[in-house]
Amino acid sequence: MISRIETKNKCFVLKGVNEVVFEERPIPEINHPCSVLLQVNYTGICGSDVHYWSRGRIGHFLVKEPMVLGHESAGTVIEVGSKVKSLEKGDRVAMEPGVPCRHCVRCKEGKYNLCEEMAFAATPPYDGTLAKYYVLPEDLCYKLPEKVSLEEGALLEPLSVAVHITRQSNIKHSDSVVIFGAGPVGLLCCAVAKAYGARKVIAVDIQRPRLDFAKEFAATSTFEPTKGSAQENAQRLVLENGLGLGADVAIDASGAESSVQTAIHVLRMGGSYVQGGMGRDEITFPIVAACTKELTLRGSFRYGPGDYQTALDMVAAGKINVKELISRKVAFEEAEQAFQDVKEGKGIKVLIAGPH
Amino acid sequence: MISRIETKNKCFVLKGVNEVVFEERPIPEINHPCSVLLQVNYTGICGSDVHYWSRGRIGHFLVKEPMVLGHESAGTVIEVGSKVKSLEKGDRVAMEPGVPCRHCVRCKEGKYNLCEEMAFAATPPYDGTLAKYYVLPEDLCYKLPEKVSLEEGALLEPLSVAVHITRQSNIKHSDSVVIFGAGPVGLLCCAVAKAYGARKVIAVDIQRPRLDFAKEFAATSTFEPTKGSAQENAQRLVLENGLGLGADVAIDASGAESSVQTAIHVLRMGGSYVQGGMGRDEITFPIVAACTKELTLRGSFRYGPGDYQTALDMVAAGKINVKELISRKVAFEEAEQAFQDVKEGKGIKVLIAGPH
Amino acid sequence: MISRIETKNKCFVLKGVNEVVFEERPIPEINHPCSVLLQVNYTGICGSDVHYWSRGRIGHFLVKEPMVLGHESAGTVIEVGSKVKSLEKGDRVAMEPGVPCRHCVRCKEGKYNLCEEMAFAATPPYDGTLAKYYVLPEDLCYKLPEKVSLEEGALLEPLSVAVHITRQSNIKHSDSVVIFGAGPVGLLCCAVAKAYGARKVIAVDIQRPRLDFAKEFAATSTFEPTKGSAQENAQRLVLENGLGLGADVAIDASGAESSVQTAIHVLRMGGSYVQGGMGRDEITFPIVAACTKELTLRGSFRYGPGDYQTALDMVAAGKINVKELISRKVAFEEAEQAFQDVKEGKGIKVLIAGPH
Amino acid sequence: MISRIETKNKCFVLKGVNEVVFEERPIPEINHPCSVLLQVNYTGICGSDVHYWSRGRIGHFLVKEPMVLGHESAGTVIEVGSKVKSLEKGDRVAMEPGVPCRHCVRCKEGKYNLCEEMAFAATPPYDGTLAKYYVLPEDLCYKLPEKVSLEEGALLEPLSVAVHITRQSNIKHSDSVVIFGAGPVGLLCCAVAKAYGARKVIAVDIQRPRLDFAKEFAATSTFEPTKGSAQENAQRLVLENGLGLGADVAIDASGAESSVQTAIHVLRMGGSYVQGGMGRDEITFPIVAACTKELTLRGSFRYGPGDYQTALDMVAAGKINVKELISRKVAFEEAEQAFQDVKEGKGIKVLIAGPH
Repeated sequence: MISRIETKNKCFVLKGVNEVVFEERPIPEINHPCSVLLQVNYTGICGSDVHYWSRGRIGHFLVKEPMVLGHESAGTVIEVGSKVKSLEKGDRVAMEPGVPCRHCVRCKEGKYNLCEEMAFAATPPYDGTLAKYYVLPEDLCYKLPEKVSLEEGALLEPLSVAVHITRQSNIKHSDSVVIFGAGPVGLLCCAVAKAYGARKVIAVDIQRPRLDFAKEFAATSTFEPTKGSAQENAQRLVLENGLGLGADVAIDASGAESSVQTAIHVLRMGGSYVQGGMGRDEITFPIVAACTKELTLRGSFRYGPGDYQTALDMVAAGKINVKELISRKVAFEEAEQAFQDVKEGKGIKVLIAGPH
Repeated sequence: MISRIETKNKCFVLKGVNEVVFEERPIPEINHPCSVLLQVNYTGICGSDVHYWSRGRIGHFLVKEPMVLGHESAGTVIEVGSKVKSLEKGDRVAMEPGVPCRHCVRCKEGKYNLCEEMAFAATPPYDGTLAKYYVLPEDLCYKLPEKVSLEEGALLEPLSVAVHITRQSNIKHSDSVVIFGAGPVGLLCCAVAKAYGARKVIAVDIQRPRLDFAKEFAATSTFEPTKGSAQENAQRLVLENGLGLGADVAIDASGAESSVQTAIHVLRMGGSYVQGGMGRDEITFPIVAACTKELTLRGSFRYGPGDYQTALDMVAAGKINVKELISRKVAFEEAEQAFQDVKEGKGIKVLIAGPH
Repeated sequence: MISRIETKNKCFVLKGVNEVVFEERPIPEINHPCSVLLQVNYTGICGSDVHYWSRGRIGHFLVKEPMVLGHESAGTVIEVGSKVKSLEKGDRVAMEPGVPCRHCVRCKEGKYNLCEEMAFAATPPYDGTLAKYYVLPEDLCYKLPEKVSLEEGALLEPLSVAVHITRQSNIKHSDSVVIFGAGPVGLLCCAVAKAYGARKVIAVDIQRPRLDFAKEFAATSTFEPTKGSAQENAQRLVLENGLGLGADVAIDASGAESSVQTAIHVLRMGGSYVQGGMGRDEITFPIVAACTKELTLRGSFRYGPGDYQTALDMVAAGKINVKELISRKVAFEEAEQAFQDVKEGKGIKVLIAGPH
Repeated sequence: MISRIETKNKCFVLKGVNEVVFEERPIPEINHPCSVLLQVNYTGICGSDVHYWSRGRIGHFLVKEPMVLGHESAGTVIEVGSKVKSLEKGDRVAMEPGVPCRHCVRCKEGKYNLCEEMAFAATPPYDGTLAKYYVLPEDLCYKLPEKVSLEEGALLEPLSVAVHITRQSNIKHSDSVVIFGAGPVGLLCCAVAKAYGARKVIAVDIQRPRLDFAKEFAATSTFEPTKGSAQENAQRLVLENGLGLGADVAIDASGAESSVQTAIHVLRMGGSYVQGGMGRDEITFPIVAACTKELTLRGSFRYGPGDYQTALDMVAAGKINVKELISRKVAFEEAEQAFQDVKEGKGIKVLIAGPH
């Protein structure tokens, strides 16, 4: 039994639309012999956090009760449950923030991200990780090797999203890949595609500075769409990038209708498409092209078995330098301002340190 | 060398929009040692034939030169090439009507239906099978066992389409399947899904008589959508058919926007969707639902390796009674009237016999 | 809280090699809110039970402490845990007898049968189901529809083994399948292969009466190997059964060296093989044939996600009549004699009823 | 039409066991509008060439007639068929040396390496590439980009073998891989596994110098087996290399019985094994271990769709430096001595230049 001098758990809580407060809540208990208590060290701000903050909902997920925000975190083990084997006090870990039920058909067939009972941090009604303390099952904590920092550990969350998206594409070595949207997830998809051996990785965005960053970071080339039709942009994409009969893989990390349309048209016969970004619920979609080219299209939702581990392995092996995405680190007390900055599109990824 | 008393090859030729004629053309030559010369016995009329007849085009396929119509045929071997091993004069065969290039990446990777050089019967500029004689490579002729009739042989073409669609869905034994559109292909998808072990096969159509036929033919239940929203229809589909968290598989064989939308909403997390039908080029599509449910969506285009053989095996094994779909058989000379009838939606499948 | 008048739990316990006793043990407690207490109604005797009884071990699994035998059971729900949703008192269920850890990489990737922490009934050190009462997690209890009897429920265990084996083969509709060994699992593999649409299902065994039964039960033809070489038997198998260039799928449910060898030789280029049976640890294996034919060979171990449900669906749909395999039902008190009979190869499947 | 001053085609011909001669044969004709005539520039010597030379057979392939040896070649286009589109005179190409029938079920389903009618260079009765001129279909010639040399082009053949083997393993990013045999193919498997993102690549061989080379070339660590049992060596492999519950993937490129056995024991539950090497027809095989660990085992035979292109892409992208494997280049006239050297195990890969 570990004695705790400190008894308070400082949290960053969403109380209503655009209304956040700092609260002291009880330190959570280890509720399962295979769980651990963590002190959270770094948390990245995600577009979804900002969305809940400014709108109070995402799709049918509605914030009804005050909810702690944050889910891109790394922390340090403070206390371990009685049956924990692989972790001990002081271990630094990346925190996979969704706990599946482990009993349903989806969980058992190897798709726990599709579990209907998933308890995911900062998705109503579950509290997030922008707190001093957090409890997670041992198997969702990924011990960081010495050379991987806690800041990088926090970045494993969006990297896992990108790993999952890229896996959904069934990418093969030497494939040509077009990635729409050069925000954090799109950028990381570029890097993951490259780690999977993609021959060409073409980043597409309407903001030139983001494309410049993408080129530096991982893309082999970039493309700025014009206001022409999706088909025209697709044709130009093919010509300018030597894609022959079309791209092997297209990934949308933007959620924009024009991106989706261009992606469908840029693919070769039998190509593969993944919807990673989320925008409007419904869009105009070129369904006959998707049908006659016999495309495979897949949604991608969060991450599943093996994704966090692969993300960690990629960072540990030096294949992806996630640190380059960190625009700024701020203190826990400055969280609200940081949210405001992210909302305004300042920087790529902002990390909140602490609370201490 | 076989002597040919007859030297004329009667054909049913599309000359322009709504303009068809009977022509005598030369008997085609066996142009490859592995090819055979066939006398065509029966040809089914397909929606695409009617479309070319009444519109002169399908998508970017434009009828520029006079073109023989027809591609759903069975025939009898008249003469064989010098290297033909598996067929001999007099054999009755189902005719797979598309000859791929066999050299491109798609052909070699096992997806010859995606070959950009495909020569497909009655797709411009390639002549179709509504002729007395037709030449095909040996490997695209499927010898009919004694118990399978030539009429059934002609029906293997739409059945192969249905086999391909159903395979694209990755259907598993015991799955629940919802099939939109109860025309020939939709009906055959019902039957194929059942042959693959589907637990529930729900046919959806806006015409009650077609649903009644579907129920007789292969569906385990039927559903007539109301004018409500796609989500409402999906919800009712789930409730009325005990689909729990949603259907495992949805297939669209209608091409209708409302079907596609309902299909996306009726699927469970991780479900599988196939676009078989073709309607408007672009539709309003619920992309966020497809993404967050992490659906797999696939187009289905014609048929590929193994599909014709599987279709034949299913018929030969008595698993699918394709004869039930034959509404009427007409003489070659009545072809135009038969096209008119199909255009007006009379009957399910009309076969043209001969020419004799 | 349910009051229990009865407080004793009669068990059939293996104490040492060839030494079994009936014991009264405490009624097990529901140890998890998602678990249920069952009264066991029927239990089939499996070769592995008999093996533990007569040898005290299977491979590295060594019986060190007294262990309740039995794992092929169906029972009735007596009491449910606080969070059980899908079951209630009185429900009749098939009992999947292995509880995985649900936390390891294998469990999470959808292969819980490969879990290193699996607690499997009647595999040391875990007690089996030949007891009056047994506790299982809700999700491992498969509610039997009215038309499926408890006896059939018990048979779902070996049927699930056969479903898993057959799935491991990646069997496709219309495939030709050769199944070696016509014991309970081999027979059920024949039936499952047929339910999956196999065109030819050839049962191979050295005992003619078993082949006769196989033919009645599910095989489309049978084969009795001679003492010739594996290659000779394979050649004869191909010729007598019209297998052309070889069988698509071969399954060994015998564990015999000659079966494995013949299976490898009977397969076509690119064919698929599954090792279901277990015999000697090491055998002489035609590895160059397996390599140059580029075969896929898979082991099959117990059953995984979806197998029990598929087994139940097949029985409920009337596709497999497992009742035909039941040679005899005996009272719990006669368990030892029943084990003796099974050891002597009397009958196909013996069920133990109760205890009452 | 290209005029040819030279009319002779110098060849290196196997006439009988250990009997080779240089012969002048006619220059081969372009026999298909999609074929090209090549001048061969470099040819690597493969173990199978040496095997035919010293034994006159491999398995059931028996050299009955004089046969030109060689199949690992790169050359220059001299003349193109009438329908050739992608190549022109002067292009430097890697030569995929097996021409499939393109019509059989295996060819059409995407496994042309399993074609029963395959015409493979230097496999009886087909002549090989150790000649001045050789004809190949356009689609089997892979144009070398400027930065890839003809010597590297010749090495694409064994690299394609390694690509195919590695693909057969279904390797995933971050997997641990153990590769048995550090000859040319084993070494290239190490490099390919690394290119596919393997976290650990452990080369196993009984010759320390080969292991030292492997470490330099691509392996992350090496292992020299002792004379102990396969299980002991497997256990030591796991311990020394931190493989935890076992390796994810094992590849045999040695054909040695002890390697196969050790490979099976070194794998984790559900691991994947590929048989690439060929030795004795039959070996003692730990089948129960393969079964209870539910391994997937696959043979690997030559290379199929996409393998040569992937090999070229890997070399062009600088991921694999195949030049390091070239021990020596010799003139065509020294071919017999070069064969002798390879037989004696001198060097890793010997290239024959010309003839000029």
